[in-house]
Amino acid sequence: MTIKRIQIGENLFAKNDEIAGENAKIFVENQIFSINLMGSPGSGKTAILEKLIPELINNGISCGVIEGDIAGSFDGERIERFGIPVVQINTGGACHLEAHMIRKGIENLPLSGLDMVIVENVGNLVCPAEFKLGVDFNITVASVTEGEEKPVKYPLMYSISELIVLNKVDLLNAVEFRVEKFKEYVRQVNVQAELINVSGKTGENIKILAEYIIKKTKQYEKS
Amino acid sequence: MTIKRIQIGENLFAKNDEIAGENAKIFVENQIFSINLMGSPGSGKTAILEKLIPELINNGISCGVIEGDIAGSFDGERIERFGIPVVQINTGGACHLEAHMIRKGIENLPLSGLDMVIVENVGNLVCPAEFKLGVDFNITVASVTEGEEKPVKYPLMYSISELIVLNKVDLLNAVEFRVEKFKEYVRQVNVQAELINVSGKTGENIKILAEYIIKKTKQYEKS
Repeated sequence: MTIKRIQIGENLFAKNDEIAGENAKIFVENQIFSINLMGSPGSGKTAILEKLIPELINNGISCGVIEGDIAGSFDGERIERFGIPVVQINTGGACHLEAHMIRKGIENLPLSGLDMVIVENVGNLVCPAEFKLGVDFNITVASVTEGEEKPVKYPLMYSISELIVLNKVDLLNAVEFRVEKFKEYVRQVNVQAELINVSGKTGENIKILAEYIIKKTKQYEKS
Repeated sequence: MTIKRIQIGENLFAKNDEIAGENAKIFVENQIFSINLMGSPGSGKTAILEKLIPELINNGISCGVIEGDIAGSFDGERIERFGIPVVQINTGGACHLEAHMIRKGIENLPLSGLDMVIVENVGNLVCPAEFKLGVDFNITVASVTEGEEKPVKYPLMYSISELIVLNKVDLLNAVEFRVEKFKEYVRQVNVQAELINVSGKTGENIKILAEYIIKKTKQYEKS
């Protein structure tokens, strides 16, 4: 008799990866550049979006947002004020978004009119990095109030990110945080990620962030 | 033929809960009051411990610490300076501590000489709340830089905590955070938790926090 082997973890990820692949296909077919915005609770992901979205709109980029939260629709409500399509997903306890949740989001967005979809993941510096979503571009949002050593303590998310946005630089004088040391720690786990320092509160460097993301969107459209 | 039902999630938690029960028994047998310190990455859990431990030592409390991190030993090194027993556990990717990891910690602490064991969980506002450790007292550390609505966005951890420590009050003037509003949000998910505002940086109210924890330790010893 042959032993039946059940590998739970692998099967779980295999199913997720399959749906992620289908999501990627949908984005490609609709020529949509997709972004996965990750970071700790309170790192300022939504605040950055509130400053970034008007810049995208001013530059003619049509953007839709998928908001992932365990509970509530605080973030979705903050974003829908900009008059763009927003889908709020409540994970009902899960600490991260999975590919099938993104699928639900995609199905509820007017894809044919969009250039970009931004996914704001659940606030968590660990688990979201483990689940592929089928999204083109990973961003980690860090903040100067979290401590400069976080890239080495939470290496996976930092290592899979193409862009690391260091937020709350308006508070640099009030906290002990050495930006150069943070960069060194980032480089220990990720040698090529772009780093941009911003303030979601004052808007500092948000134009630079917007320009960078728009450049990536245009490169994607040409590819 | 009878269908064989395999409930993966429940079995996983059942095994964890069994070990958690054994951990609780070990703490009781050794008359050790045990604390599970949880919170977001960068909420300031270690900074609070750095201020709290000298207060505990001054009050004759013998304390051991189990440090949980995905990778690295930054936090363990910060704590061992106080000359108390510290065990650094690296979860190797897991976003939370589980009961069997606490067991490893317990096995490496000189239990007979201790009044208290503090577990510093992995920085994560979600998953640590889902795994029982066999520990007596749950504390959530929040910080004013995270945003006042977090209790409602991450309700599980806030709901299972006996004490909520609001950290970084030294930054209240630099951020938009209404303490009263935060308390209202806490009360929506937890009607009875104690709330103490502190600064791990300046030491503000750390004596009050220490007194409260010492009182709980003494109540435990009498029970």
